[in-house]
Amino acid sequence: MDLKMSAEELNAFMHEAFAQAARDFTVEHASMRDITVRLHVDERHLRPGETVSGPAIFALADVAVYLSVLAMIGPEALAVTTSASIDFMRKPAAGVDLIAKAKLLKLGKKLAVGDVLIYSQGRSEPVARASLTYSIPPQRS
Amino acid sequence: MDLKMSAEELNAFMHEAFAQAARDFTVEHASMRDITVRLHVDERHLRPGETVSGPAIFALADVAVYLSVLAMIGPEALAVTTSASIDFMRKPAAGVDLIAKAKLLKLGKKLAVGDVLIYSQGRSEPVARASLTYSIPPQRS
Amino acid sequence: MDLKMSAEELNAFMHEAFAQAARDFTVEHASMRDITVRLHVDERHLRPGETVSGPAIFALADVAVYLSVLAMIGPEALAVTTSASIDFMRKPAAGVDLIAKAKLLKLGKKLAVGDVLIYSQGRSEPVARASLTYSIPPQRS
Amino acid sequence: MDLKMSAEELNAFMHEAFAQAARDFTVEHASMRDITVRLHVDERHLRPGETVSGPAIFALADVAVYLSVLAMIGPEALAVTTSASIDFMRKPAAGVDLIAKAKLLKLGKKLAVGDVLIYSQGRSEPVARASLTYSIPPQRS
Repeated sequence: MDLKMSAEELNAFMHEAFAQAARDFTVEHASMRDITVRLHVDERHLRPGETVSGPAIFALADVAVYLSVLAMIGPEALAVTTSASIDFMRKPAAGVDLIAKAKLLKLGKKLAVGDVLIYSQGRSEPVARASLTYSIPPQRS
Repeated sequence: MDLKMSAEELNAFMHEAFAQAARDFTVEHASMRDITVRLHVDERHLRPGETVSGPAIFALADVAVYLSVLAMIGPEALAVTTSASIDFMRKPAAGVDLIAKAKLLKLGKKLAVGDVLIYSQGRSEPVARASLTYSIPPQRS
Repeated sequence: MDLKMSAEELNAFMHEAFAQAARDFTVEHASMRDITVRLHVDERHLRPGETVSGPAIFALADVAVYLSVLAMIGPEALAVTTSASIDFMRKPAAGVDLIAKAKLLKLGKKLAVGDVLIYSQGRSEPVARASLTYSIPPQRS
Repeated sequence: MDLKMSAEELNAFMHEAFAQAARDFTVEHASMRDITVRLHVDERHLRPGETVSGPAIFALADVAVYLSVLAMIGPEALAVTTSASIDFMRKPAAGVDLIAKAKLLKLGKKLAVGDVLIYSQGRSEPVARASLTYSIPPQRS
């Protein structure tokens, strides 16, 4: 299997299909092995105490695994999240972006499953981990 | 055990502590048994196809269980989400608010666990379910 | 939709298809709304400290939601668990059986999702909660 | 931080504390980075169709992350599983053991979180993934 979309193509797709999200997220790297997505942390992602909110971290996890599915199956696909589990493990560092590193563990005909670790930029211990499952729509031919 | 905060007190607390979130959410009902929270669905919660985004649904689940913890332990507490699992089961109906019904399953010294079902207003089949765990800070005296 | 299998039919099915499991579990009640399954707690389910092991609790959650799917779609189906999340909230009481109360939240063409609470017999506070997703095989006609 | 228990010490601990489990599992490797645990697949772990049962896979995930906590904090600890999420992604291969590769993502004062991938021996694509959280008892001194 080949990568169907590069990092640039994934960013272009986000700009077209999810203009709002494209402001927040940049794909920095995409390969067969993994994908790296940055959350440009902004005031609207913060909770009191200068910490990034849980839902903003969830959104980063979701977009990172979603894009790692699209990288493999191409932009035409209408994958939807069916389930997610997330562990919030450390408080994000103040004033830096969050970096998600996702990888696909399964790409089946009906379901795709991916795993993601999220880091404060420049730190080696993860802020959060998540696993997400997507339902893959039937292939058009 | 008694309810430490009413629906009104929870709404007032949100306005003070999370001004941004208070725009989005209203506690409609709070009792020892359960709590009902409304997400005022707005353009910024939507994805293409007029559907409410996964992260917005996650945020509603998180705030609903968080507030059900506060209802029991009071506003001074600094509970943080440590883990969550969520299942997205149906597409939200277009043009209506989302309603979360949460209940606490455990309120321990260190951890609280709650469950939540999320509905499109007026529908009987849930859009999503989630379970969340919060770490409870040591009691001040 | 009608219930396709009664409690008796579910127990008979377990005896035929999963002879080993049938020693451990009994369906006590099955309706459109929910299903009740008992784990006959035995020495082989225990951990040091007379507590029921996590995997035995997981097995009870899994079988209870699985049977609630079969109750709706009938015995011919080859549903497989695709994901599960479980929270262990209290230590099971010593020397009593565990009772699972499960309900289906979604029964789609491809996926079914159910929720389950597990109690030590005679207690009102749950030992554990779990949610499970099953992949439904394509319908034969 | 140093490894407090080697693979041999973890196996010896299992034999003493969980004689029943020690029949099923062997720690094959333990380091600061990760731990490898084998499930000796036996008839009692199987479901019809020669496949390893979900609860047996869950038990392997649980023991692997549990032992990776003990490797770091030592045998005196009474850690208990508080939550778990698991994705069953592929049918295990018939007639071979299962191999779990677990790593700790967080070792806090109150909670430890670990991740595990499970493989059929000799295969490169995982059968399952899981994440587990353990409550760490207060340190004796």
